[in-house]
Amino acid sequence: MKPVKIGLLGLGTVGGGTVSVLANNAAEIARRAGREIQIAHAAARAYDAGAIDGLERIGRIGDDAFAVVEDPEVEVVIELIGGYSPARELVLRAIENGKHVVTANKALIALHGNEIFAVAREHGVTVGFEAAVAGGIPIIKAVREGLAANHIEWVAGIINGTGNFILSEMRDKGRDFADVLAEAQALGYAEADPTFDVEGIDAAHKLTILGSLAFGIPLQFERCFTEGISKIGALDVAYAAELGYRIKHLGIARRGEQGIELRVHPTLIPERRLLANVDGVMNAVLVKGDAVGPTLYYGAGAGALPTASAVVADLVDVVRTLTTDPSNRVPHLAFQPDELADTPVLEMEAVETAYYLRLSALDQPGVMARIASILGEHGISIEAIKQQEPGEGETHVPLVMLTHRVRERQMNAALAQIEALDSVQGEIIRIRVEMLSG
Amino acid sequence: MKPVKIGLLGLGTVGGGTVSVLANNAAEIARRAGREIQIAHAAARAYDAGAIDGLERIGRIGDDAFAVVEDPEVEVVIELIGGYSPARELVLRAIENGKHVVTANKALIALHGNEIFAVAREHGVTVGFEAAVAGGIPIIKAVREGLAANHIEWVAGIINGTGNFILSEMRDKGRDFADVLAEAQALGYAEADPTFDVEGIDAAHKLTILGSLAFGIPLQFERCFTEGISKIGALDVAYAAELGYRIKHLGIARRGEQGIELRVHPTLIPERRLLANVDGVMNAVLVKGDAVGPTLYYGAGAGALPTASAVVADLVDVVRTLTTDPSNRVPHLAFQPDELADTPVLEMEAVETAYYLRLSALDQPGVMARIASILGEHGISIEAIKQQEPGEGETHVPLVMLTHRVRERQMNAALAQIEALDSVQGEIIRIRVEMLSG
Repeated sequence: MKPVKIGLLGLGTVGGGTVSVLANNAAEIARRAGREIQIAHAAARAYDAGAIDGLERIGRIGDDAFAVVEDPEVEVVIELIGGYSPARELVLRAIENGKHVVTANKALIALHGNEIFAVAREHGVTVGFEAAVAGGIPIIKAVREGLAANHIEWVAGIINGTGNFILSEMRDKGRDFADVLAEAQALGYAEADPTFDVEGIDAAHKLTILGSLAFGIPLQFERCFTEGISKIGALDVAYAAELGYRIKHLGIARRGEQGIELRVHPTLIPERRLLANVDGVMNAVLVKGDAVGPTLYYGAGAGALPTASAVVADLVDVVRTLTTDPSNRVPHLAFQPDELADTPVLEMEAVETAYYLRLSALDQPGVMARIASILGEHGISIEAIKQQEPGEGETHVPLVMLTHRVRERQMNAALAQIEALDSVQGEIIRIRVEMLSG
Repeated sequence: MKPVKIGLLGLGTVGGGTVSVLANNAAEIARRAGREIQIAHAAARAYDAGAIDGLERIGRIGDDAFAVVEDPEVEVVIELIGGYSPARELVLRAIENGKHVVTANKALIALHGNEIFAVAREHGVTVGFEAAVAGGIPIIKAVREGLAANHIEWVAGIINGTGNFILSEMRDKGRDFADVLAEAQALGYAEADPTFDVEGIDAAHKLTILGSLAFGIPLQFERCFTEGISKIGALDVAYAAELGYRIKHLGIARRGEQGIELRVHPTLIPERRLLANVDGVMNAVLVKGDAVGPTLYYGAGAGALPTASAVVADLVDVVRTLTTDPSNRVPHLAFQPDELADTPVLEMEAVETAYYLRLSALDQPGVMARIASILGEHGISIEAIKQQEPGEGETHVPLVMLTHRVRERQMNAALAQIEALDSVQGEIIRIRVEMLSG
């Protein structure tokens, strides 16, 4: 089947990330989507060619965005230039030309979404905007499809990474708002003009979208209450902690008896809540449905590759719709049935992890040395050890060790030898250790 | 448009929940799906009629499950009887009859999914199984669609609520495995025969499915390594805590250089990880993609209504596919464009929250009383108060209060009066408080 031809508007941070993801994961994405995806035509005023992997795969790069949306070869337009204008005109023109659209532009959707969706409906095309809310977290798909059975009661989210980074730093280091903001700007987490982030306008765009998805109301950005975090002092962060709370900049959409609440403001939340423990630039959205109860979605809310992840997910959705019959739109096992791999599933003995070990050893000189030496012979190094004094009249003591990573095969061999020692009693308890980090 | 006719197999916990969700949220679900959903024909050996809301909406209830899958009126079959047989035969027969299928049966999919999906493909129907993994959390949709741009590196999940409840109780109360298991059985969180849960078989079914979705390999339950939690002692939980870890029963699927790891076993994970803080019967799945980084999905992994939430989400997916043209399959704002509501978005003054207040007050008798009395006059009661001794030479002290919930309008009026007091200096800092609970 012929590749799907894409038009790309913008080669900045997210545009560059999208080019890279489509290049790096091309084969895997095609195995999922059922068809190759090719960027036939891109437009950007200026871009950093050296910083973008896969730029050479783009059919044509020009500087006229309107030429892309008029290009008859292009089937799907990805809008990543941001702002209201000419983004609005470009998106509307693409739709009028019968092209599907994918955008990461939250401001555009929050303010002009009602108009854009109406025109898309007339022309029978899809507008994907997963990347507009909470970056790489598939929260729009979760609310719009995954929770479709629910009467949604409320949504509460940390949906601006810059603001969350500032509040996290204020809390961790006891620092002041202005001080942390300056650092965030130096690190590139905050813009030179931080108003959109710290005054909550960016979060209000996203909350407007979430509120409409949750409650089935038209987008009404102008009705969203917005308060920033610039008045929060180090003193407030400290008092909140003393009272058992953390301060987070939340977007809250709630369905009440009189109407719908749409509000972005700093909020004290109990420190034991998962949402209270979402720190740094990470985002998270908590959704309360009447059937499912609370569900939470966590991940990177910004950045080139996480945002590109959402853009390309929307693109795969469109390609699947264009390519297969509706009943097989999403392949049962995520990849097209003919594209499943025969990668072997490993025996447990071939798996490498770190280990926690607990055994009961005779409290006698040389026993520990013997155990350590058996571990060493099997290439197992000890990271931490805990040994207790024996109680009155006890001959054996519990010995607890954490090891570095090693193949299960070696660990099995070592444990068999250790269990065979006269100085070791009973079975060794072995629990695998995983750091679950990047 | 005519309602979509559903056949339902099983009126147990999840079957009953599904009937209730479809009854209670009928209007909202139809506004999302584009069509009403009607249970035309259900089959169950025995059921508790008094415990199921909406039973009267079912067209016909019999005791012959095969009659349902042969019923020409039925377009979609929901299989909620569980087990391998006759579930497999019923699902295959439904598919052969051209009916779409939705199932919550993880054992069936993990063991017979390859066969079932192949037959479904031949007959051009969809088999939805969102409810088979992690109950109400839309994790299958997230992995299969939301993260489609990613090369997935690993998936790690708490995917059995019973096991997680036991480990959480062991940690919180320092209790032993057997002791907590007995309680879990009494509470109905664990089956009389707890083998499937505590020995990790249930988790292995789910992990097998997640691994296939993440890596595009056929379902291979027989290759999944499975170790239960019954050997974990109170001592291990305590030692793990001393070392900065928590013990969780995880399902881990990881793509390595030699092959794919599929393993369910107790695991020590660092205590600061969000996954380490998922307690009780809740489930959570952490997915690491190369573009998006780590994302986490949290919610109820079992129970009548949460599982029904996933069953009905699959059903809405099918109905949307049956009903609208592919480009408008999922309405942009979740609800069909003609079904958006005109529910008003409230003014902030009409919103009710609790408040944190910080102000600078003259350190003088009667000042606090005056402030409290103004708050009282506006119907605002104080939940907690913190007042500091003044420093050397200071005339004003910071005064911090938490209030009970009240309308913003009353708070605004009260704060205006308090700010006008001579004994209060500068602006009052006001931060809203939300408990984010049920």
